[in-house]
Amino acid sequence: MKDIVRLGVIGCGARGDVLINGVLIPLHKEGVEISGICDLYGDRTQKLADQIEKETGSRPFCTDDYHKIIAMDVDAILITAAWEYHVEIALAAMEAGKYVGMEVGGNFAMEDCWKLVDTSERTGIPCMMLENCCYGKRELMVLNMVKKGLFGEIVACDGGYHHDLREEIAYGEENRHYRLRNYLHRNCENYPTHELGPICKVLGINRGNRLLSLTSMASSAKGLHEYIVEKKGTEDKLAKAQFAQGDIVKTVIRCAGGELITLTLDTTLPRAYSRGFTVRGTKGGYWEDMDAVFLDGKDNENDFEPKKLWDNAKDYEEQYHHPLWKNYVPVGGHDGMDFLVLQAFIEAVRKGTQTPIDVYDTATWMCISTLSEQSISTGGMPQPIPDFTRGRWMERKDISQLHYSLDQISD
Amino acid sequence: MKDIVRLGVIGCGARGDVLINGVLIPLHKEGVEISGICDLYGDRTQKLADQIEKETGSRPFCTDDYHKIIAMDVDAILITAAWEYHVEIALAAMEAGKYVGMEVGGNFAMEDCWKLVDTSERTGIPCMMLENCCYGKRELMVLNMVKKGLFGEIVACDGGYHHDLREEIAYGEENRHYRLRNYLHRNCENYPTHELGPICKVLGINRGNRLLSLTSMASSAKGLHEYIVEKKGTEDKLAKAQFAQGDIVKTVIRCAGGELITLTLDTTLPRAYSRGFTVRGTKGGYWEDMDAVFLDGKDNENDFEPKKLWDNAKDYEEQYHHPLWKNYVPVGGHDGMDFLVLQAFIEAVRKGTQTPIDVYDTATWMCISTLSEQSISTGGMPQPIPDFTRGRWMERKDISQLHYSLDQISD
Repeated sequence: MKDIVRLGVIGCGARGDVLINGVLIPLHKEGVEISGICDLYGDRTQKLADQIEKETGSRPFCTDDYHKIIAMDVDAILITAAWEYHVEIALAAMEAGKYVGMEVGGNFAMEDCWKLVDTSERTGIPCMMLENCCYGKRELMVLNMVKKGLFGEIVACDGGYHHDLREEIAYGEENRHYRLRNYLHRNCENYPTHELGPICKVLGINRGNRLLSLTSMASSAKGLHEYIVEKKGTEDKLAKAQFAQGDIVKTVIRCAGGELITLTLDTTLPRAYSRGFTVRGTKGGYWEDMDAVFLDGKDNENDFEPKKLWDNAKDYEEQYHHPLWKNYVPVGGHDGMDFLVLQAFIEAVRKGTQTPIDVYDTATWMCISTLSEQSISTGGMPQPIPDFTRGRWMERKDISQLHYSLDQISD
Repeated sequence: MKDIVRLGVIGCGARGDVLINGVLIPLHKEGVEISGICDLYGDRTQKLADQIEKETGSRPFCTDDYHKIIAMDVDAILITAAWEYHVEIALAAMEAGKYVGMEVGGNFAMEDCWKLVDTSERTGIPCMMLENCCYGKRELMVLNMVKKGLFGEIVACDGGYHHDLREEIAYGEENRHYRLRNYLHRNCENYPTHELGPICKVLGINRGNRLLSLTSMASSAKGLHEYIVEKKGTEDKLAKAQFAQGDIVKTVIRCAGGELITLTLDTTLPRAYSRGFTVRGTKGGYWEDMDAVFLDGKDNENDFEPKKLWDNAKDYEEQYHHPLWKNYVPVGGHDGMDFLVLQAFIEAVRKGTQTPIDVYDTATWMCISTLSEQSISTGGMPQPIPDFTRGRWMERKDISQLHYSLDQISD
């Protein structure tokens, strides 16, 4: 048990900033130290170093070479860099014996996911995707309700990343944002883990169940171009850009247990934010978009009056709030999810235990990007999804004893 | 122009009953005559004949042989029989020169859709799928908003048939219901036309656009079995039945214009009714499940407060109600949609004109059932969707002058 957990943070763009200022600096007095920070842009590291020094009294080491961060005497590496560098950094960190907390994102090659698994298995170092949505208030409440059997057998789940990112993609931090190049060049489910992570926890993926295969289809790409021309005019440097990324991507996944998962990527058209989290079972379901619960035998009188069910999920909070959310007042970004996911990671580092999201989860969730790209590029051909556990999913149990584990359910 | 439109109704189960009592009998005083009715079950025809005689003063001819109805001196045939017999009856009616109004349902063989098209082209007789949802209040308002450009270019649409039919499938009219055999034996998008019909009108399918290909995946089938055992016990005659039909089927269709359509069949799990109608464009969208409109430039301040948009569609009614719904007080079943769709059909019969939903629409919408069955049975393989217009979709215009046409938009 470590009194002080020393962290290196690689990537100081918007996400690194949010985690450092929103979670890590507040955790300073609970024994979390930001030892070093890294970014290719020196203005980013200097600004964050100033803030860290001001709030904690000690200035982190700053560099643009992530190897120097990994070589430091730190316990764990947080990877908040551009998507394309997550795996490379994670592999180097594991080889150096440092816990890996990797921000969300997809993969670019199937081989990379196997490398993460192989390296974690060989070194014994955990690699946790920091999927904050696994710690969402509703996601955890619904997980709790599922485990208590309220919805019966689960048959299908939906989720997505419905977030109007047009401004960020095109002009984020003066075009430094890595999303731009991805939207220009790739066409895939580029951000699968919201809401696949929480859904996989609901369905016991890699623990008694697994993802078998998927198909993926993309719409045309019209949203970004229209936004750019409308907002900046036809002379803007992006006005003639041809975006490869379809505005809407639908990916349908079939599980070994027969469950169907539908993921939607939806980031370049106007709308309000949602993760579209939906869980359907033989006895009931939950719909994030209406924040509604339906229980068979209780709500059937409203079969033709769905509005009466809107916003009723809050009525279940007292009884079904996940233990992690009972008496919890959110701090940090994204409604407290960032705090909870980092706490879970840091607690595992502190105790030297496995992380509640492990390398098999990380690899399984990331690989959807490349598989969806392959399916879209071949007109929707189904793609098999690898079993990164090599058959162990049939016997792996929930890891339910970690204090911040997703799987801890009280009675 | 016919003063009296004489109809034969083939199929007197629940649907025939609703149309006769809800729409046709009320239309008697506007020159609609129910000349003959047909069903394999005599108790059905006798009961309806009694009602028709009581309300209109004349008793229809009753038979269990649909050929005798088609041979009568009628102007049009309404087909409200079991799904499997729609095409056979429609072909016989067209051959006899009778307009065909065919209830919704999917196909069982691709060849059947071509037969409908070929026969309609050769005989010159229209064949209209009576897709009442095309006449839904919100569907028509949103169509109106789309045509006026409020949502910009349309990029994606969702729709589905979300209707808990467990009781009807298993025990409808003492097991006489044709859904039972379909759920026992088939696994497909068995009811595609809600909401594909309205979506095709939005996207101009067969009129400047067309459906290109689809993939389809199904969940396991758990809902019906659990319902039966829970409700009737393990000794019920259906308790050991193995249902082929997955509880949730997702079908993703790509259009020639690059639009993505996602259809969901969802009829054997507990939930409230919805058609999940969703239209997404570069300037805004509509979501039936929240009855919400989002317009870019107007609603962006609510990007992270979606609840503020819930139920706002009614604010658009005064300005954007479709002409068909202005000053219209719904009569008959299904919120007035049944009335409007039959009125549209009867008006075409009366005037001898083309129907607003024509044989190309009918064939295109129906064929999704067989194509989804093929895709599901091959693990999600993409299936090409035939061009029933044989290339004419590139030049076909909206048929916008029929009084009850879907495409009539006032300024």
